[in-house]
Amino acid sequence: MITVGIVGGTGYTGVELLRLLAQHPEVRLQAITSRKEAGQAVDTLFPSLRGHVDLAFSLPEQAGLERCDLVFFATPNGVAMEQARTLVDAGVRVIDLAADFRIKDVALWEKWYGMKHACPELVAEAVYGLPEVNRKAIREARLVANPGCYPTAVQLGFLPLLEAGLVDPAHLIADSKSGVSGAGRKAETHILFAEAGDNFKAYGVAGHRHHPEIRQGLQAASGQAVGLTFVPHLVPMIRGIHATLYATLRQEANLQALFEARYANEPFVDVLPAGSQPDTRSVRASNLCRIAVHRPQGGDTVVVLSVIDNLVKGAAGQAVQNMNLMFGFPETLGLTQVPVLP
Amino acid sequence: MITVGIVGGTGYTGVELLRLLAQHPEVRLQAITSRKEAGQAVDTLFPSLRGHVDLAFSLPEQAGLERCDLVFFATPNGVAMEQARTLVDAGVRVIDLAADFRIKDVALWEKWYGMKHACPELVAEAVYGLPEVNRKAIREARLVANPGCYPTAVQLGFLPLLEAGLVDPAHLIADSKSGVSGAGRKAETHILFAEAGDNFKAYGVAGHRHHPEIRQGLQAASGQAVGLTFVPHLVPMIRGIHATLYATLRQEANLQALFEARYANEPFVDVLPAGSQPDTRSVRASNLCRIAVHRPQGGDTVVVLSVIDNLVKGAAGQAVQNMNLMFGFPETLGLTQVPVLP
Amino acid sequence: MITVGIVGGTGYTGVELLRLLAQHPEVRLQAITSRKEAGQAVDTLFPSLRGHVDLAFSLPEQAGLERCDLVFFATPNGVAMEQARTLVDAGVRVIDLAADFRIKDVALWEKWYGMKHACPELVAEAVYGLPEVNRKAIREARLVANPGCYPTAVQLGFLPLLEAGLVDPAHLIADSKSGVSGAGRKAETHILFAEAGDNFKAYGVAGHRHHPEIRQGLQAASGQAVGLTFVPHLVPMIRGIHATLYATLRQEANLQALFEARYANEPFVDVLPAGSQPDTRSVRASNLCRIAVHRPQGGDTVVVLSVIDNLVKGAAGQAVQNMNLMFGFPETLGLTQVPVLP
Amino acid sequence: MITVGIVGGTGYTGVELLRLLAQHPEVRLQAITSRKEAGQAVDTLFPSLRGHVDLAFSLPEQAGLERCDLVFFATPNGVAMEQARTLVDAGVRVIDLAADFRIKDVALWEKWYGMKHACPELVAEAVYGLPEVNRKAIREARLVANPGCYPTAVQLGFLPLLEAGLVDPAHLIADSKSGVSGAGRKAETHILFAEAGDNFKAYGVAGHRHHPEIRQGLQAASGQAVGLTFVPHLVPMIRGIHATLYATLRQEANLQALFEARYANEPFVDVLPAGSQPDTRSVRASNLCRIAVHRPQGGDTVVVLSVIDNLVKGAAGQAVQNMNLMFGFPETLGLTQVPVLP
Repeated sequence: MITVGIVGGTGYTGVELLRLLAQHPEVRLQAITSRKEAGQAVDTLFPSLRGHVDLAFSLPEQAGLERCDLVFFATPNGVAMEQARTLVDAGVRVIDLAADFRIKDVALWEKWYGMKHACPELVAEAVYGLPEVNRKAIREARLVANPGCYPTAVQLGFLPLLEAGLVDPAHLIADSKSGVSGAGRKAETHILFAEAGDNFKAYGVAGHRHHPEIRQGLQAASGQAVGLTFVPHLVPMIRGIHATLYATLRQEANLQALFEARYANEPFVDVLPAGSQPDTRSVRASNLCRIAVHRPQGGDTVVVLSVIDNLVKGAAGQAVQNMNLMFGFPETLGLTQVPVLP
Repeated sequence: MITVGIVGGTGYTGVELLRLLAQHPEVRLQAITSRKEAGQAVDTLFPSLRGHVDLAFSLPEQAGLERCDLVFFATPNGVAMEQARTLVDAGVRVIDLAADFRIKDVALWEKWYGMKHACPELVAEAVYGLPEVNRKAIREARLVANPGCYPTAVQLGFLPLLEAGLVDPAHLIADSKSGVSGAGRKAETHILFAEAGDNFKAYGVAGHRHHPEIRQGLQAASGQAVGLTFVPHLVPMIRGIHATLYATLRQEANLQALFEARYANEPFVDVLPAGSQPDTRSVRASNLCRIAVHRPQGGDTVVVLSVIDNLVKGAAGQAVQNMNLMFGFPETLGLTQVPVLP
Repeated sequence: MITVGIVGGTGYTGVELLRLLAQHPEVRLQAITSRKEAGQAVDTLFPSLRGHVDLAFSLPEQAGLERCDLVFFATPNGVAMEQARTLVDAGVRVIDLAADFRIKDVALWEKWYGMKHACPELVAEAVYGLPEVNRKAIREARLVANPGCYPTAVQLGFLPLLEAGLVDPAHLIADSKSGVSGAGRKAETHILFAEAGDNFKAYGVAGHRHHPEIRQGLQAASGQAVGLTFVPHLVPMIRGIHATLYATLRQEANLQALFEARYANEPFVDVLPAGSQPDTRSVRASNLCRIAVHRPQGGDTVVVLSVIDNLVKGAAGQAVQNMNLMFGFPETLGLTQVPVLP
Repeated sequence: MITVGIVGGTGYTGVELLRLLAQHPEVRLQAITSRKEAGQAVDTLFPSLRGHVDLAFSLPEQAGLERCDLVFFATPNGVAMEQARTLVDAGVRVIDLAADFRIKDVALWEKWYGMKHACPELVAEAVYGLPEVNRKAIREARLVANPGCYPTAVQLGFLPLLEAGLVDPAHLIADSKSGVSGAGRKAETHILFAEAGDNFKAYGVAGHRHHPEIRQGLQAASGQAVGLTFVPHLVPMIRGIHATLYATLRQEANLQALFEARYANEPFVDVLPAGSQPDTRSVRASNLCRIAVHRPQGGDTVVVLSVIDNLVKGAAGQAVQNMNLMFGFPETLGLTQVPVLP
């Protein structure tokens, strides 16, 4: 049993983390902080948690975070980098669900996130929390940078191809689609129901913050520079990411066997039978990534379809998976929920 | 540990039952039958169950249902009444999620369901599976008639008022709204996405099969004849029922206290604080019914808001709750999932 | 040909007004004001208007509104009451799509809208713009108070019953459902896609601003005090209002004939054949109200189903209908679009 | 004024054609045929048409189609090829909204559509009805093959690049997304609201009937063989197609200027300002195609975003555009509706 705190629990990542942690047998929730909602019962803001979470939001300085075994940051970008140092020094392990520690090149991070990094030395130490790549390092990590939602779906889809050196790394395409919860629980016009409903559009074509994060991971996998075109789109659904990935084959290979072998021992990556096309709802509310690989008309273009729930494997679920690794719990503990369909 | 069979597992009630039973610690799934899909792996039809349900659909006659401790019927109306007799006689307990055994007046049932009842003597024996009313009888029942989705939401909302004799029973109004999954997983034009999406309408205003079922329950609660106007509506959402109930007060009462007292010991009925208005999503994928009671402008009209997930408390979850009661398991076993929000 | 100005064109009422006016053969759009967007091309904010509206938003004081024949206020409540006086005195006719002039009892208005009325003497003069009731007065009006969306649907549904004195006016129930665009184009959390999608809920049960407006209209129709319970609900769709109305009959009547006779000459009220149940989509993007009247099981409860597009007959379309009346154009001019289905 | 008949008016293409033709000043609708619905009033099936279309469905043989100036086929594939010959011989001009005459290579057509072509000689004569390519031939055509929805969006997006020879034709990618109405108004499980709602998936990755149609058009534009990867996806919205197109640049060019020049005189193709990203809703219920061209990070990958309403520019609207050309009406007549937003 470990004692856990959450900084910033009023967004979708926060409420999803609460949903998962409330059902986790080895977690005692000590505090959830929110400056804005301090004093309010958590289940008033999120009635879905009535009977499961009895805490009220607390002020960060009164939350006793330094006495926790683990603190999650479910905050906007730029918060964790201000507070992680103190916690880590106090022996508290930290998982940041925001982007503060994901990109190793601090100058690149500062360019995309538009702020000065407050704690560059922890960037170097932080472990990128994609268990399918960094499992061993995560186990020992003091600070884990939980991956972004798009980066999780895209990297898991491309990894087998790049690690095997089968495709041209200079012309990778990631046509990605996300449900609206990926934009967070912020009062912004463009994600209103009457704006995003019954509509479909691309956004961020000229550049998106997840581009450098994805590229960093793909380059590590391929061992060379990678050219990536990343086009995200907004889908009128609540949860789910579908990444449709395109690459050009440079040599023959049994792609189905390759993918199955790569993920044979991964509890949360499910390679579908040949010819499959995964629905996002087949992973709804679960920590799974389901993947299918295609080679249309037997040509030299590989198409990979990769789906996750952006709030689970793309955020809170992956964070709990990382927590399980860090504290020596079974990796799937508290994460075996069956996807909710329909 | 009990052995369980499911007859007819290809609809939404079936897949939801599988989702819940797959996570239930006291259940071993023996068979799921479907004439149409016999031989096909269940997780091919429902990829959400990959890794959780390893069965293939089987032919009913080869399923060994008579060796089960319990058989669920997740079939269209009219199937269970043909097969329940043999199972019950063989000592198998039965829960019918369809309507075959819900209405005690067989002639009335035959009028609304348009067929001759094949097994009227079991109707008399069957226990109506609303635990909040019939908990004791359910424990001993050989055959449970699992309530309909609308009837669950409407009865739980009206019960406290009628049991206390506070309202005029002659003019009850149940303005009810259901997500589209309530219509089942049948290929019918009117529930296509392009028909039911971005649209709202009433249906069955002249008469709906759930009307006599609701009326039977309300009359039992009030001990007298009841006049009920029931207008169902189709909502462009997948899961959820919202019943907005209207009744005329005949005497003063503390309605909030009345409701809280009535449901104080009910694990799956949550009376919200005064002034609340429940979202259907606050019970999504859970077995909860959340209720709020209002008296607008202090007049003599009571308004009760009652929400459930039609596939859980309105179908599969309530069936599992009944199973728990029948076999002496804790009533909430396998039913403590936190609602999925957003 | 008249010259028209719009004050406040950045909300849904504004863009819908632009859609309709851009296609109106007797209208020349002179100006659309928005302090916040001044200088920006209208079709940058609303790309749907590219090629149809060439104006840029302008500052109110530079818009030359006093030279228009007609000015529409598509502003938040409280704006028109500050500016209408000057325009009316300058001979400009005014239609306010907000609530400033809808309620004759200024004290009641001030209570519900939470502000001091800036121009009570114009309230007395203003004509409530429901053509089916006030056609003649609208023709001569200098200032029209365009009705609210719920009030339009509810009043048109109840009017025939109340005018004929057929129902008990003390216990009217209006269970009303609205698409999310009814909440406007404001950045608020509760109307985000991920909040309002796949969800259904009541709101404002204790009290809603449209209650006094509806009640005022129903009392005028019935000639006596009216008791109304009004429960609005939020539907996960973009456009559309569905009002399900309940009343208790006091005497026998041919309800179908009554409704057909009442609306026989109304170009925008369509009484459906007996037994019908209107979809909201059957009026999508059109100025129609479709109504069906039912008497379930032949009892004494009348059920009226009334649907409109909240942005058209519930706002901008009705405003154009009023404009047509005020300027002697054919009442349906520019409003004959076929509803968009699916 | 011309006399027009429609064969098969019960699908979405049919009701959309009726919506447009009912508002067209030069069209008199003579008959709409449907074997299944013969005798039923059209506005009973589609209440949105009440007051706009007074016809009943008729049997094909009693519809007097041979006396029409023009007959539209809004039928399933394989119907028009059986009936067009007789009509054309009788001097009736024909527009087929299905696929029977779209592909010049009859053997290829037979492979993809799984049937023997009944009228190959008319395939040779038929004009592919994409006005932006074949305007002149359409004017004279006796038989027009109206393009598919995906093919319209994809071809209009790729044409400027291929005509100018700027991109590698061997590796074109069309990642395409369609609203559910694109699947038609057929009672099929996979397009139920509860299946397609809140979900996203690819389909037809191994092969889709629109692939050879698109390829034929792209090859004509580029004058050489084309390698195309086409991945369609199903979006939980009613109307709209969004094609995200990828190609590799072979030489420098001002892409924005290229696209603007190519479509400068096209009334229904709107090239958006540089940096834009079109919403599908910005063309909802209109005949427009809006296009934006991007070159992310200045690399050699071109990204084109192309949106249409699949039922209008992707079907019925384009058919009316072709009709206007064939009969010498202004090309935009009856097609100037402002898109419906929100």
